[in-house]
Amino acid sequence: MNIGFIGQGIMGRPMALNLLNAGHNVSVYARRAEMMADLLKEGALACKTPAQVASQSDITFICVSDTPDVEQVIMGEQGVIHGAHKGSVVVDMSTISPSVTRQLAGQLMERGVYMLDAPVSGGEQAAIDGTLSIMVGGEADIFRRVLPLFECMGKNIVHIGDNGAGQVTKACNQVVIAQTIAAIGEAFILATASGVDPAKVRQALLGGFAGSRVLESHGDRMLKRNFKPGFKARLHQKDMRIVMEEAHKLGVALPGAAMAAGYLNVVVEQGKGEQDSISMLELQEQASGVTVSSKI
Amino acid sequence: MNIGFIGQGIMGRPMALNLLNAGHNVSVYARRAEMMADLLKEGALACKTPAQVASQSDITFICVSDTPDVEQVIMGEQGVIHGAHKGSVVVDMSTISPSVTRQLAGQLMERGVYMLDAPVSGGEQAAIDGTLSIMVGGEADIFRRVLPLFECMGKNIVHIGDNGAGQVTKACNQVVIAQTIAAIGEAFILATASGVDPAKVRQALLGGFAGSRVLESHGDRMLKRNFKPGFKARLHQKDMRIVMEEAHKLGVALPGAAMAAGYLNVVVEQGKGEQDSISMLELQEQASGVTVSSKI
Repeated sequence: MNIGFIGQGIMGRPMALNLLNAGHNVSVYARRAEMMADLLKEGALACKTPAQVASQSDITFICVSDTPDVEQVIMGEQGVIHGAHKGSVVVDMSTISPSVTRQLAGQLMERGVYMLDAPVSGGEQAAIDGTLSIMVGGEADIFRRVLPLFECMGKNIVHIGDNGAGQVTKACNQVVIAQTIAAIGEAFILATASGVDPAKVRQALLGGFAGSRVLESHGDRMLKRNFKPGFKARLHQKDMRIVMEEAHKLGVALPGAAMAAGYLNVVVEQGKGEQDSISMLELQEQASGVTVSSKI
Repeated sequence: MNIGFIGQGIMGRPMALNLLNAGHNVSVYARRAEMMADLLKEGALACKTPAQVASQSDITFICVSDTPDVEQVIMGEQGVIHGAHKGSVVVDMSTISPSVTRQLAGQLMERGVYMLDAPVSGGEQAAIDGTLSIMVGGEADIFRRVLPLFECMGKNIVHIGDNGAGQVTKACNQVVIAQTIAAIGEAFILATASGVDPAKVRQALLGGFAGSRVLESHGDRMLKRNFKPGFKARLHQKDMRIVMEEAHKLGVALPGAAMAAGYLNVVVEQGKGEQDSISMLELQEQASGVTVSSKI
């Protein structure tokens, strides 16, 4: 199949490579042309604009950073919408605003172009291994058409609902993860301040109802003070900004999410945006005058 | 071995029964004598006071509700401390204040009596099945002496540290569980307000880093609006009160725990203390004017 892939960042590049390796023709575009070099060596076709990618593709994937980037890639002067032919599909795998996603899907549909929102989770390693979780919004028929391609990139692939539903699910995912990290930070501070080894607390909690993937993975890195990403604080900050924007539009109260979003704002403000988002532990420690550490 | 068991509530009764069934002599006491009937039928020996239980026992277990109850059982006029012989062990399996626990351990030690704090998690069913998680504080030698008896009642049995360390661990456990419930409530509200089925969101999240035992178990009951305990809101409220008291004594900031403690205060104030602690979802719904519901 003729496939397009726009965005060759830390996630997009390995995702596009997995599509190439599955035997598809892949046309690529990146704002910084040098980012395409690896893929061109593997046989991808370089394009000069997003419109050109779309004009050569039955299905065009987008994986860029933020809402305005996706708007620019799709609606900009040389955007996808100016090249995409009727009946083709645009699949946005970035994490962006659910409401803007619905707008873009509407604008594409006016030209007879389908859209899916398909944000991912799992991080760089899962992108390389082709084991991403993919949360998809859009028409069920279109989902089924794209599914074999999703299966080149991910494992836990769920069709959630209409356009935007994938982004809503990703927002929910980030709400839960951010607050779970913060909750575990509080538990570790309570343990440390009480003279109890937080690593032993973690071990005991893993076996019961407090057990989670975050306690397993992030909790271990928090105790080892390994702040290497993982998932960068500035990206988690961006995702929580989207959550709080949606909460404002929808008129709902998400006080726990707001707290975690606040932590991430300060982490980034303190110049730690390239560290893992577990760096919010350092703020919790500053607030309590406690440094979490384990002897085991 | 001669064992004592004080407290025949929803947890204590099946725990004592498992010790009886393992072939031990068990002396029992309950404030309300009728609570002992089941155990007496199975061969337990009725006592008139906590002191009498301790005088007949090498190891005396306590499983009552709150800090003042344990203080009364141990230090009261007819308390354990007046009957316990030198070298015997008092094991408190209630969930109470870590700092009061350390005081009580000190007072018992002055009489040559050892203490372990060994709060449990897992709820009534795990107490019946003998599969409780048990978090233990106190001397390692004493832990090893009691371990075979813990193994009659639980499965995930961890020695954490000195006196009080078990209670600290339980407090950390409750901090994480309360906030995870609240975070999942927010995710479900965000999904519902966005027109996305929260059950599909739950399914998608279970496969990734947002996955947790709470999302599996409590999350499912939240979607089914099954507020039957499980774990009663008034007990979770009591545990979070202990957490906030410790935070005050230690001088640490636990804003997420404070938020969840506040929800539980309101749940109990609204007369829902006998419901499961997931009932805080109803407050989150009231605050946002959204009722979480799923079509699947």
